[in-house]
Amino acid sequence: MPLKRWLVGDPLKTTQAAHERLSKTLALAIFSSNNISSVAYATEEILLVLVLAGTAAVAWSIPVSVAILFLVLVLTISYRQIIYEYPEGGGAYAVAKANLGELPALCAAGALMISYIVTVAVSIAAGIAALTSAVPSLFVHREALGLMAIFFIVIISLRGVRESGQLFSIPTYFAIGVLGLLVVVGVARSLYDSRPVPPSMNPATNGEVEALTLFLILRSFAVGCSAVTGMEVISNGVKAFRHPEPKNAATTMIWMSTILAALFMGISWMAYHYGIIPKAEETVVSQLARTTFGTGALYYAVQIGTMILLVLAANSAFAGFPHLASILARDGFMPHQMATFGDRLVFSNGIIILGLFACMLLVLFEGDTHALIPLYAIGVFVSFTISQSGMVRSWLKRKGAHWRKKLFVNGVGAITTGIATLIIAATKFADGAWVVLLLVTMLVLMFRGIRSHYKAVKEQVTLSRDSRPPRPRRNLIIIPISGVNRSVVRAVDYARSRGGEIRALLVDVNSQETALTEIQWAQWGCGVPLIVLPSPYRSILGSITDFIEEQRQKDPDCWITVVLPEILPARWWQNILHNQRALMLKGALLFKDRVVLTDVPFHLTR
Amino acid sequence: MPLKRWLVGDPLKTTQAAHERLSKTLALAIFSSNNISSVAYATEEILLVLVLAGTAAVAWSIPVSVAILFLVLVLTISYRQIIYEYPEGGGAYAVAKANLGELPALCAAGALMISYIVTVAVSIAAGIAALTSAVPSLFVHREALGLMAIFFIVIISLRGVRESGQLFSIPTYFAIGVLGLLVVVGVARSLYDSRPVPPSMNPATNGEVEALTLFLILRSFAVGCSAVTGMEVISNGVKAFRHPEPKNAATTMIWMSTILAALFMGISWMAYHYGIIPKAEETVVSQLARTTFGTGALYYAVQIGTMILLVLAANSAFAGFPHLASILARDGFMPHQMATFGDRLVFSNGIIILGLFACMLLVLFEGDTHALIPLYAIGVFVSFTISQSGMVRSWLKRKGAHWRKKLFVNGVGAITTGIATLIIAATKFADGAWVVLLLVTMLVLMFRGIRSHYKAVKEQVTLSRDSRPPRPRRNLIIIPISGVNRSVVRAVDYARSRGGEIRALLVDVNSQETALTEIQWAQWGCGVPLIVLPSPYRSILGSITDFIEEQRQKDPDCWITVVLPEILPARWWQNILHNQRALMLKGALLFKDRVVLTDVPFHLTR
Repeated sequence: MPLKRWLVGDPLKTTQAAHERLSKTLALAIFSSNNISSVAYATEEILLVLVLAGTAAVAWSIPVSVAILFLVLVLTISYRQIIYEYPEGGGAYAVAKANLGELPALCAAGALMISYIVTVAVSIAAGIAALTSAVPSLFVHREALGLMAIFFIVIISLRGVRESGQLFSIPTYFAIGVLGLLVVVGVARSLYDSRPVPPSMNPATNGEVEALTLFLILRSFAVGCSAVTGMEVISNGVKAFRHPEPKNAATTMIWMSTILAALFMGISWMAYHYGIIPKAEETVVSQLARTTFGTGALYYAVQIGTMILLVLAANSAFAGFPHLASILARDGFMPHQMATFGDRLVFSNGIIILGLFACMLLVLFEGDTHALIPLYAIGVFVSFTISQSGMVRSWLKRKGAHWRKKLFVNGVGAITTGIATLIIAATKFADGAWVVLLLVTMLVLMFRGIRSHYKAVKEQVTLSRDSRPPRPRRNLIIIPISGVNRSVVRAVDYARSRGGEIRALLVDVNSQETALTEIQWAQWGCGVPLIVLPSPYRSILGSITDFIEEQRQKDPDCWITVVLPEILPARWWQNILHNQRALMLKGALLFKDRVVLTDVPFHLTR
Repeated sequence: MPLKRWLVGDPLKTTQAAHERLSKTLALAIFSSNNISSVAYATEEILLVLVLAGTAAVAWSIPVSVAILFLVLVLTISYRQIIYEYPEGGGAYAVAKANLGELPALCAAGALMISYIVTVAVSIAAGIAALTSAVPSLFVHREALGLMAIFFIVIISLRGVRESGQLFSIPTYFAIGVLGLLVVVGVARSLYDSRPVPPSMNPATNGEVEALTLFLILRSFAVGCSAVTGMEVISNGVKAFRHPEPKNAATTMIWMSTILAALFMGISWMAYHYGIIPKAEETVVSQLARTTFGTGALYYAVQIGTMILLVLAANSAFAGFPHLASILARDGFMPHQMATFGDRLVFSNGIIILGLFACMLLVLFEGDTHALIPLYAIGVFVSFTISQSGMVRSWLKRKGAHWRKKLFVNGVGAITTGIATLIIAATKFADGAWVVLLLVTMLVLMFRGIRSHYKAVKEQVTLSRDSRPPRPRRNLIIIPISGVNRSVVRAVDYARSRGGEIRALLVDVNSQETALTEIQWAQWGCGVPLIVLPSPYRSILGSITDFIEEQRQKDPDCWITVVLPEILPARWWQNILHNQRALMLKGALLFKDRVVLTDVPFHLTR
């Protein structure tokens, strides 16, 4: 417990909750890193696909980037509208639930949950790649470094949202600053140079070149879509902003999109201009920084900034995932405990579960960004499409002020993201998108299973109006003993402190010991009758359960309390030396109706 | 349960125990297979060491085998004496405990336990090697085949000792018969041939040859000592024989030693005469059988016989290990449950534990006999030496009839086995004997730890003569609730069926819900007072434990019963959706003195 306190801080009172609201600058630091950090790998992923068709095809990265820029514009305008319409937050799930019904809402929720987990894994993997580009000797430790980073973020997240914002805002702005400097200097110099450097082919892929098909260009667009992931984070967290929440959130959204667009387009342009080709051992951003600044202090600042930004990007998922899980839990689609506020006013269970799954994913894919990318984006785009479609349906139903204009905006959003979703699903299906679609289906089934279980439980435990409280019944108290000692005397003491018929039960496995116990019982039994049961098969358990079954048949309305004298060792591993029989008895009696087990622990001190 | 019944049979009554005694022929089948089966690998292991010094050195196998034959003679005479002196059985542990004290007895017990486990692994590995010599295509499956064989023996052992004897006696005698035939035919033909075939060198070891040092010869003797393992099995199990137990056991011992000596010497002689050199892919016995009978029906009979004998050898450990564990458990050196007779009159726990450890060993050493051999013999010889030394000490103390003669016999036994132990330890230390010595040390520490724990427990629970049974105390019954439903009403019903002050406890986390619950309580509470606790930190758990702590401080002598309404789902995995809070409450209250927890389960049906 002291370790927990030191790691996550002292508990906070419920009344402190209102103060945990975020200013725009803090919110930008927390909510934008997911989105902006994708500039670290999006351009690289586009180039990695195009280069399959040879160095000439690399020039296609500019039109592909422009197409993605268009997506950013559409999503920004659409999501601003959602922020104003759903200031309660909840994003795709809330919008779909209100307008499209349960199934699309659960699909959106499932898709978002998966993409939160993948976000953490991808961001951490790419962050560690930024580090190992600068310090190649750390490459072999990338998995361990990734796990450490996730652990660090989990701890920070458990401390609560405001502190995380404060802790993260300085490095976030530092990272945006150095990346901005890289883009400004790099682009300025490229304009001065005037002529692009032709890319030199990677010797590894020399010779074998694919045809530059439409499919290949669409694939490069699909992987480039990872750039716009995280656009929805602000709309999910409107409630975390200071008053007036929607206005502040919308403004923050515009800032975020502008920074993303500038950095992404700048990096894509520079990569094209300087003829950068992705290498296995060094990221594209690292190559650009080396070309622009040389391997000096500024180069390392860019690498450190990128790494920090990516590690913090994972943090935004740690705000979003538990929040979504708690909304689902409140609607009965997730276990109730996911909706429980921890003592630091955060949903601790959700944070821990996200951390565990992200670690699993990181280990499974050996900390490799490129291997994880096919799992990415598809989930986000499914939720984008559902969310925009929900808005379209909403405008068609409500028809408020300016509804035609608003319908047009969300309509364009729905169609654009829908097309992008189809492109991603089609071009990345075999690479891993199918896994995500399968997992989303399984999650939806799980959500429904949990809800129907809770519903069934509610029906079973709800009291009917016409029934009356039961009248008091008989209670037969049974104390199974195998001898007389302090633990047994303690159990008898406990049983006698309340009313009811009390009987001690001894199974006769050894007639000598039985006789001895009977003599001792006369002194220590406090007048409680001792029943001796025969046991031809040496089964103590069987004799006791047979006796109980007999009593239940005699008076089915009676409660039977089995008081078990239990020895509680001072150290946990000593349990293997005790209470094996009590454990088996518990197992045998667990499912008998109106049979209640009571352990009376006797605490050993050594 | 029906599966268990089908596998191990119906329970047997305690009174049936006496009938489970063995005739000499049945006993020979059960107890001798361990010992006799070692002829399948002992000669091969000797040759494997000698061949390191070149083909000329192989002739040394004859003197080494004669030395081992001398060991067999000494052990037979010594153990006959032990059988008559300790008809209760118990072997080295019992002898050492009576004459040498606790520490040597525990060392002997630890050494024997390890060697039982290794016996199973070695025998199964060698048995599968006999099979794969005849059917080389099965070689890749040797681990799986070994595990299946162990599983089979565990099941047979759990059925009980007499049935195993009946099941195993026919194949045992078949195996002894075909091996006997091989030796008779092979030796007869060798006498007719008159001149030995010079061994042709294995091309793999050609060229590099070690010097024929004394150390090498001693090493070949050490590995050859695996031939005499299992000599002690009969003396451990004298009680299992029919009346007169010692006489029958001693006779069986002589039969066993004679068979062992004849087969072992015969195989060593034939291997020398026909110039057999061990091969990785075929056992020496398989080569001998092929040379003698050709690859026909008789060859396959020898291989099948050898395999069966070795698999059955593992079975003798399944009689010895649980028996030893039960004796140790009765003395308090092992957990009590090891001394519990199962419903088939066998020590089920010991059988299952031996099976698990043997499987582990087999998998760890990839089913390779040669890799396991260094672990073997050392344990057995440590126990031989301790056992013979114990007898020497006994004669010196008691000095009964013919004590000088008897002292001489056991003295020779002690010295011979002591020297053999030193040779084995010295020549095989680095190969794996150190592991066994380390494990024996750890086992001895474990035995002592368990005993001292049981002793401490006994001191703590034993009632003192001058104390009196406690007078009845107060009992405060607390029912923590979070709302009113059938499960809560059931808990109240249970609590009311007995006396004591009953209080329901509600933690106020949501004032609206609290108000609703208070109204419902008026109808359903049966007059039980409802206490509402404030909870500034949203910690339901903390509020309840604080309340209980307060009550304990008010009246330290009072019992506090916490009655928990618990929902018991119809399927186990649904538990994750329920009772998380009850679980945490249990954890928090477990170590509070005089606080007793009672679950009142509400059984869900769907």
